[in-house]
Amino acid sequence: MKKKRIVVIGGSAAGPKTAAKARRLDEHAEIILLQKDKDLSMASCGYPYYVGGVFDDRNELISTPTGVVRNPKFFLNAKGIDARTETEVVAIDPKEHTVTCKHLQSGDVDTINYDKLVVCTGARPIIPPIPGTDLDGITTLQSMKDADFLRKIRDEKNIRKAVVIGGGLIGIETCEALELAGIDITVVELAPQLLTFLDWEMAEIVENHVRAKGSNVITNNGVAAFLGEGGKLTGVKLANGTELECELAVVAIGVRPNVDLAKAAGLTIGETGGIAVNEYMQTSDPDIYAAGDCVESRNVITNKKVHAPMGDLANLQGRVAGENVIAGNTATFSGVLQTGICKVFDFSAGSTGLSEAAAKQLGYDTYETVVNASPDKPGFMGANLLISKMLADKKTGKVLGVQCVGPGDVSKQIATAAMALKGGFTVDDLINLDMPYAPPFSLAIDHFVATAHLMQNKLKGRLQGISPCAVHEKLENHEKPFILDVRGPDEFEQMRLGIGETLIPLGMLRKRLEDLPEDKETEIICYCKISLRGYEASLILQAHGWKNAKVMEGGVMAWPYNREK
Amino acid sequence: MKKKRIVVIGGSAAGPKTAAKARRLDEHAEIILLQKDKDLSMASCGYPYYVGGVFDDRNELISTPTGVVRNPKFFLNAKGIDARTETEVVAIDPKEHTVTCKHLQSGDVDTINYDKLVVCTGARPIIPPIPGTDLDGITTLQSMKDADFLRKIRDEKNIRKAVVIGGGLIGIETCEALELAGIDITVVELAPQLLTFLDWEMAEIVENHVRAKGSNVITNNGVAAFLGEGGKLTGVKLANGTELECELAVVAIGVRPNVDLAKAAGLTIGETGGIAVNEYMQTSDPDIYAAGDCVESRNVITNKKVHAPMGDLANLQGRVAGENVIAGNTATFSGVLQTGICKVFDFSAGSTGLSEAAAKQLGYDTYETVVNASPDKPGFMGANLLISKMLADKKTGKVLGVQCVGPGDVSKQIATAAMALKGGFTVDDLINLDMPYAPPFSLAIDHFVATAHLMQNKLKGRLQGISPCAVHEKLENHEKPFILDVRGPDEFEQMRLGIGETLIPLGMLRKRLEDLPEDKETEIICYCKISLRGYEASLILQAHGWKNAKVMEGGVMAWPYNREK
Repeated sequence: MKKKRIVVIGGSAAGPKTAAKARRLDEHAEIILLQKDKDLSMASCGYPYYVGGVFDDRNELISTPTGVVRNPKFFLNAKGIDARTETEVVAIDPKEHTVTCKHLQSGDVDTINYDKLVVCTGARPIIPPIPGTDLDGITTLQSMKDADFLRKIRDEKNIRKAVVIGGGLIGIETCEALELAGIDITVVELAPQLLTFLDWEMAEIVENHVRAKGSNVITNNGVAAFLGEGGKLTGVKLANGTELECELAVVAIGVRPNVDLAKAAGLTIGETGGIAVNEYMQTSDPDIYAAGDCVESRNVITNKKVHAPMGDLANLQGRVAGENVIAGNTATFSGVLQTGICKVFDFSAGSTGLSEAAAKQLGYDTYETVVNASPDKPGFMGANLLISKMLADKKTGKVLGVQCVGPGDVSKQIATAAMALKGGFTVDDLINLDMPYAPPFSLAIDHFVATAHLMQNKLKGRLQGISPCAVHEKLENHEKPFILDVRGPDEFEQMRLGIGETLIPLGMLRKRLEDLPEDKETEIICYCKISLRGYEASLILQAHGWKNAKVMEGGVMAWPYNREK
Repeated sequence: MKKKRIVVIGGSAAGPKTAAKARRLDEHAEIILLQKDKDLSMASCGYPYYVGGVFDDRNELISTPTGVVRNPKFFLNAKGIDARTETEVVAIDPKEHTVTCKHLQSGDVDTINYDKLVVCTGARPIIPPIPGTDLDGITTLQSMKDADFLRKIRDEKNIRKAVVIGGGLIGIETCEALELAGIDITVVELAPQLLTFLDWEMAEIVENHVRAKGSNVITNNGVAAFLGEGGKLTGVKLANGTELECELAVVAIGVRPNVDLAKAAGLTIGETGGIAVNEYMQTSDPDIYAAGDCVESRNVITNKKVHAPMGDLANLQGRVAGENVIAGNTATFSGVLQTGICKVFDFSAGSTGLSEAAAKQLGYDTYETVVNASPDKPGFMGANLLISKMLADKKTGKVLGVQCVGPGDVSKQIATAAMALKGGFTVDDLINLDMPYAPPFSLAIDHFVATAHLMQNKLKGRLQGISPCAVHEKLENHEKPFILDVRGPDEFEQMRLGIGETLIPLGMLRKRLEDLPEDKETEIICYCKISLRGYEASLILQAHGWKNAKVMEGGVMAWPYNREK
């Protein structure tokens, strides 16, 4: 029996996973992994934590949990995989079933036959087409080389000021890493907000935290030019003319699928710029598969193609491709929810499914939103705040997306939400979830379930909610709603919104109804710290005839604007 | 319009939740909450953490997040609820729609009419029917009074030795609390293991940790008598005759639904001893509802009635009852998964759905199990171990239950698993989950997804797994499988099972096949630290003709027996 030969191009995440899975299914197949870089199987999502000094041994990024470096020798001995590093594939010939490789050390070129080929060529960082990109001191954080470069800067402590261009996941992680290294950081973002997978008001809460940790943030502004002297970066010039002095700039404005080889080989490229694949991770050529950051995926909520370059998806897709090249399309990849999470100093920020902005952009017009702020566990256990925003379809009740930010256990919230989306759950399905409860882990009614309760109350018309943004807009437009803070006097003393509010503690409200506007049509905006008392206040007022009594969702904690104290 | 009068019996968890929900839906209803104890709305799941010194202010157990004590004044002013403490309901007359109350301070008795009644009488700790239960120094941890008593012992440091009777959730939490107070603890458990919601081998891993933290554990042994002198506890005598000296005994052998009132009123009591309710939390009398620890619930996996006295369920059921007494059966409680979690010193232990033991007891015979051990995140981020056991139906692939123990993020694992059970997901549904991944939170392939991968491999016949228990049994029965440890020599040096294993590191295996038994029928048991390399080893051997090459699931980390080092 002729041995099957599997060739995999790319040795970062999807490639090694593909090769390893193929090997487990066929001990006798010949499996060749071709990698342009020197390193293999790099934990690239860990780069910011190496740069930031969470750990010091660079080899941890390329080692097994027991400390063995994943080099060609390891791949050969432990995995039976012929991994060739510093080997660049320069062409694929689908008709001949060959790839042409260039050995970067020797310059030699050779040709390798394949039975099945898997393209895992990843993505490339986008570099803005502006003057000065060749100056010393400009980098991305996309490769081991980049990580080494930035880590050296951290260790040598000879850089005072840096600019991070781009406020997405990698930009924010890099900001944190460099800030922790004692460098003065400014994050510059073209959009009006950081982390565009979040809605504006959620991102604003994160931005306030980033500022509180000492970093500067400039939004609504792009970089027009890099400035330099003697070949070295000295600053960046922004689109609005501002010049920021800096000795280091990290470009993190996103990545594009690396499809040069696939395109040249005539494989179909999708509308998003990624390699088009079917549910088997098979390209337009049935003997060529692709996986990881170079492909496009289907968003299962919108049913639209997206480019979702995430480390976990690369591994899952590699597992599917690895099975299918051996077993023949027995495994499928079902699509993505675009789940993401990011540590931001003492906060986490995560999202799954649609944000309100994404829903709007896609033309959804039957969604409802709700914001829930609450501790993640009882106060006596050392609680941390969680602020969630849920999106659901008004007609079907189906959950469309959940975002969560704050110092609390965001990861569990988003994992739970991703499962709800996976199941196509409606809000009603979430009302009585039997979650793992004990005081060290959650509130008796978990924050996620409470978010669903609020959404159900809103969908049933029991909770008349208004978002902080809508309240702010009313004030900007010189509307005059009656603003009612129902917290205690001590809480009011410590911190308040300063938007013309009246303080009537909830416990006094039933006795002080005469202090409210006589006109029962007046819009009344109730809130407290997290707007549970605010909700009860709005219900009391409604029951006493005020037709427009509303609760400002999330209360003081979810207010994304300046506060008085 | 006549005001509706709602009477709620019980002021712990379900009762106050019922009353609060009812109030939110009807500002004008008359809502009376009758509570036998002095305190209201106690965070009873927090008692062990107060006793253990996690926090010092007792009022935190009975306060709102902003520090207001939830006393009758608070209930009246903030919630509009007439909460009457030290008021014991002595009878319900369903025909007359009245309850008879005794005021414990004055001894006065009066009668209150109701339109709808909600019974939230909770559960009572079981006290074993043995001699000596009236001695000083014996307590439960079920009330504020108990918590005060044990906290005083902690603060006064005048007790040297204590016995905790019962190794369930509360027993283990109490053990931790008292151990942290510097008291010598022995936990005595009648069953062969602690935490019977776990399977034996999972519980054994927890037990090893409890012992490592300094507590003594005696299983397979009950308490036969309390021993005393001058009315004071001096020790306990076990069923096997052993006497344990102690000045304190905490009884935590479980609770029984408190149904005396309901029974006397003629309400139907279910087969589990809890009040029978329908999905609306309505008892056999349509004007009487019940919620919390006094009711029985339906397990949605087995469709059998169970008694599930958990704080989260009490709140969720109270919310349903509170809505239905106002709005007329518009809300339903869908049943329970029997999800639970518990902190055990530096470990957590959780479960949702069926354990293998439960499945066996119910007569399931088509289930498959798998054990997965892995870090919860990358090693460079400071990983902690997770050990999970999943149960799935062999025919349908449906997940039946998940248990997880270890120092890692168990809470997220069990929350995710509970969502999978809620959705009725099959193992295939879990293979490509799009979970929130970043190195501070998880591995690129989350532990839960990896557990599903292992189960899929097992269901497809790709992974020939064997449990540590089955291996141990073989050795006890003097069978002679070939035991193959495929870790590195350093790892072997540090810790090994000592069960006659041969060490061949995975990277050497393909070159050392001649060191394996010539007879290709020999059973070969492969493992490594967590049995990923062990799995690959078993596949290599199978591919080279060994028909009975298996992987011992979970590897060294999931081995529940003694190790050599």
